[in-house]
Amino acid sequence: MRVVLPAGTTETALIDGISAAGAAPELMEHTPSADVEILEYGEPVASPVTPVSPNGCPTPAAVTRAVREVVGFDVSIVDAGLVRSTAAPTVEIGADPGADVRESAAVPGADAAFDRAYDYGASLPDDELLIGETVPGGTTTALGVLTALGEPTAVSSSLPENPLERKRRVVDEALTASDLEPGDCEGRPLEAIEAVGDPVQPTVAGIAAGALESGTAVTLAGGTQMIAVAAALRHAGIEAPLSIATTSFVADEQGDRLEAACERVDCDLTVTDPGFDGRDHVAMERYCAGEAKEGVAMGGALSLVPDGEMAAVRDRLEAVCARLGIEAEGDAGGDPSADATEDGRGP
Amino acid sequence: MRVVLPAGTTETALIDGISAAGAAPELMEHTPSADVEILEYGEPVASPVTPVSPNGCPTPAAVTRAVREVVGFDVSIVDAGLVRSTAAPTVEIGADPGADVRESAAVPGADAAFDRAYDYGASLPDDELLIGETVPGGTTTALGVLTALGEPTAVSSSLPENPLERKRRVVDEALTASDLEPGDCEGRPLEAIEAVGDPVQPTVAGIAAGALESGTAVTLAGGTQMIAVAAALRHAGIEAPLSIATTSFVADEQGDRLEAACERVDCDLTVTDPGFDGRDHVAMERYCAGEAKEGVAMGGALSLVPDGEMAAVRDRLEAVCARLGIEAEGDAGGDPSADATEDGRGP
Repeated sequence: MRVVLPAGTTETALIDGISAAGAAPELMEHTPSADVEILEYGEPVASPVTPVSPNGCPTPAAVTRAVREVVGFDVSIVDAGLVRSTAAPTVEIGADPGADVRESAAVPGADAAFDRAYDYGASLPDDELLIGETVPGGTTTALGVLTALGEPTAVSSSLPENPLERKRRVVDEALTASDLEPGDCEGRPLEAIEAVGDPVQPTVAGIAAGALESGTAVTLAGGTQMIAVAAALRHAGIEAPLSIATTSFVADEQGDRLEAACERVDCDLTVTDPGFDGRDHVAMERYCAGEAKEGVAMGGALSLVPDGEMAAVRDRLEAVCARLGIEAEGDAGGDPSADATEDGRGP
Repeated sequence: MRVVLPAGTTETALIDGISAAGAAPELMEHTPSADVEILEYGEPVASPVTPVSPNGCPTPAAVTRAVREVVGFDVSIVDAGLVRSTAAPTVEIGADPGADVRESAAVPGADAAFDRAYDYGASLPDDELLIGETVPGGTTTALGVLTALGEPTAVSSSLPENPLERKRRVVDEALTASDLEPGDCEGRPLEAIEAVGDPVQPTVAGIAAGALESGTAVTLAGGTQMIAVAAALRHAGIEAPLSIATTSFVADEQGDRLEAACERVDCDLTVTDPGFDGRDHVAMERYCAGEAKEGVAMGGALSLVPDGEMAAVRDRLEAVCARLGIEAEGDAGGDPSADATEDGRGP
């Protein structure tokens, strides 16, 4: 089992009201670069930012790393449009950072990114891949793609209160800027992504499509962002079996809509509850309160934890949090101005 | 324990008589890119070349991968001047491929590569690093640097018959082209590397120096190429404890010179014998006959194998070889024209 993690950025994350309330938006650009360092090394290494919300909620990368320290899976990080450098090793597929969806083209290189990602996915010798993502603003671009494809548009948020109406207004503007109506891209998912998506979407979709074509089992690790990718794959005519693995936090927020969405895109659904409600630790409390919810392959990673090992993951998460400057009592550490994950990602 | 693997190229490998006899030299450019794919994925993925000698001797990457499949260490690959793309994830430090040592500057960016590598090494949170290398032609550039520093110049070879006199003639030409006499760079190792080295040397040296400065224990994984890096570090005035871990194949070839060299650069020496002589398998027979010997952190990786597990490593090596198209009986697979490892690397 290999976890592949495309990491990228879109200027969509910088839109007022989409990005983290009160945080310096330019710090959000560092979030995916910091996330992949946490996944690779256990803490940020070159990144000037530790993605921790003002409430003390760490990036889902912390949870995925904690699982990795227990389970020991391989990780291959893919540069799917990072705008800030990272000290983590990345696979280069030539993806560029995404533009604001309200520009005429949000991902001008969507076709090329998909093709190179496809070749990469097809070349991997693994029997099973778990593909995640980290891209601030990714729920808005997911909404954009779902809307352009004419699919139901329930998307999640990394905030307890989902600013869904704001996102819908942004997507409306985005479609207008691309001269599109909802549903206009039915059957043409790369056009949808090019117009109103982000560069991580064609990367995830391409790796998945290439891997499926070569007989590899694929699980998309994420929530509603991965529903959008699955929809893109189905609209591309790809009918191979596909699974989605996400967290109980997304499932709790989405309710019946999540299963309905998975059925619509013909995906098996795995939901994993990490049991954070039993712990008196600010990071786990914030997840239980609905912050972050998902991202950086968190739900997929949790699905790899064998029975009886989840307590060890929670223990490791406490250790990872301590490295990130988060104490159990809720005295949030990290860089307090760097609440870059808030609403920046998560399904 | 993290294995860090700088991978790069130098046009020095293309010099007639230095490069693999009979092989198309341009294929050698792919060797380090293929090596890091083998280390990351277990086989070449995007690389068009499988580094296997015409005799059926696989790249040391196969051995290091076999150890990894048994021991499970983390690997971070650093692009230290790859000229061909790779599907393996790499840390970018901005190193360029090296020029022919017979040009006036072999590594024009040696200072900058060292500085960035230093920052990377200093930033890593690990307690222990094992730093390897893969760079075809690296024994010639090692000879170059040792000569420029005025150090004893015993270097190894990946061929059973070491073409040491050829290498010495190349180094003589290289020094002349840089207007240097042997010993002229004493105390100025980056000048030696810039003049007659390769881009992997300042990368390994920089990571080691940065890691040592931040209190991380460092083992250089390799043979005589790592003696050259250790000499560079000592000439830079770095006095921290430093270890070298290599294979019994290098030790057998070098005899007393290896321990003497390690003493001269004040390094502990660990030699590990993988017990290949007990196996009836062409890959292991070729190693016992003196091919390849070392590279891609092979000796260092072998030093991580716990007591009683070496047989498991040999079993895994057979599985890795099968993936590379090498059958036990010696019917060498891979691309028969791609004997890119021959004399291309190894200490």
